[in-house]
Amino acid sequence: MSPAGRQIRIDLSYDGTDFAGWQVQPGRRTVQGVLEEALSRIEGRRAARVRGAGRTDAGVHARAQVADCRLTSELDDASIGHALHRILPPDLRPLAVRTVEEGFNARSRALRKTYRYRLDLTRYGDPFLARFAWFWPFEFDRKRLQQALEMLPGRRDWSGFAASKCTITDRVRDLAEARYEEPGDGEAWLVFSADGFLTHMVRNLVGTLVEVARRRLPAERIAAILESGDRRLAGPTAPARGLWLWEVVYAEPDRIG
Amino acid sequence: MSPAGRQIRIDLSYDGTDFAGWQVQPGRRTVQGVLEEALSRIEGRRAARVRGAGRTDAGVHARAQVADCRLTSELDDASIGHALHRILPPDLRPLAVRTVEEGFNARSRALRKTYRYRLDLTRYGDPFLARFAWFWPFEFDRKRLQQALEMLPGRRDWSGFAASKCTITDRVRDLAEARYEEPGDGEAWLVFSADGFLTHMVRNLVGTLVEVARRRLPAERIAAILESGDRRLAGPTAPARGLWLWEVVYAEPDRIG
Repeated sequence: MSPAGRQIRIDLSYDGTDFAGWQVQPGRRTVQGVLEEALSRIEGRRAARVRGAGRTDAGVHARAQVADCRLTSELDDASIGHALHRILPPDLRPLAVRTVEEGFNARSRALRKTYRYRLDLTRYGDPFLARFAWFWPFEFDRKRLQQALEMLPGRRDWSGFAASKCTITDRVRDLAEARYEEPGDGEAWLVFSADGFLTHMVRNLVGTLVEVARRRLPAERIAAILESGDRRLAGPTAPARGLWLWEVVYAEPDRIG
Repeated sequence: MSPAGRQIRIDLSYDGTDFAGWQVQPGRRTVQGVLEEALSRIEGRRAARVRGAGRTDAGVHARAQVADCRLTSELDDASIGHALHRILPPDLRPLAVRTVEEGFNARSRALRKTYRYRLDLTRYGDPFLARFAWFWPFEFDRKRLQQALEMLPGRRDWSGFAASKCTITDRVRDLAEARYEEPGDGEAWLVFSADGFLTHMVRNLVGTLVEVARRRLPAERIAAILESGDRRLAGPTAPARGLWLWEVVYAEPDRIG
């Protein structure tokens, strides 16, 4: 017996700068909170609860976050998208709204997530990236970085790169991809794809990788952190503003009709 | 007889969102004001005055603004650049600092300026462009736009596209280029190059061009505005946030040594 209404998938994009992260917190402006309030208006003041594929931290952006929600509204998908477009603020935008199968769960059904971390390698920092990248005016040895990146992919315990506050017990994740892209003009990205990530995992990876590129840590330190699981061997946590939830991939076709 | 010190050219980039424009205004945060304060610190509290190639309005951005200034500091150009880098805020960044010939004047020596206006043609608006583009969810007829653009280039009086508050008497300018670029993914730019621009000229051009693209004005309206000089025939002034001072070109080599 399924509850009333239908299951909806909402793809979203947001500038995380002025949000206290994804998850609802009393008295704070969060993505989940603003989205639930908008959906509850569409539902005629009936409370709406959403679940996100990734619980992004304060200041972290999403090119494409995925959320799910149960709605009783009789509006069709396009009209819900249009209503969200009108209600949501300029820093939180709907990308697509579609009715999905009953069991769709944006978090547990996600097969793979990609996070990207943007570095600003321009000489004095690009003012248009101040909210969206980490300005890195220090040495940046791409060869050492590459050596370190090659040690990362694989299915293993990632405790050494998890935040001390991380409450997840099963810390085994399958990192499919860890690579560096530098399209030019000071634009640089570190790209990570996995079946899941631990709290602060990408930011701790980035903080350690740039220390390697800066020649403050040897590339082999990566292997040592992975083997020991010792967070104290890793570099500092990179700032939230450079991190983007880029893509969430699901297996089965989730569209109905 | 030249005054003490040397003439400096400073290339700058800024996110105009949180500035009340270029020009100093008492009690307001302006680009000129913040820059002069930084230079006066470098000069050991001696007042510094800068002149900008373009007096951008509140909310208008600069990819590359050019300013000139007389400095008595004995620091070399690279050290002044580095000091500006340290003192200036993240939304106002130096690009380059160089000593130029005595007579260099960033405004009067400019041969050509290019402004670009960014439109966001994505379906629901890109949250990362909320500060940097004008979201345009309406009809956008590229063929009509193109017809209108082709009427613009030339040396003529631009009174019909000047702000009513514009105090410039000689309103003849040579518009070398007016074109549309659409690299894809909802990214679109209107590009204007001229030997100079009147107050709000680009924003009034854009406001009129998009009305043509929206089929609310005929393309021929452009010719009528140019002939009559009647501002009332033009469209509304496009918002500041989409406008970027893109490039300022000077004739002679201005670098010394």
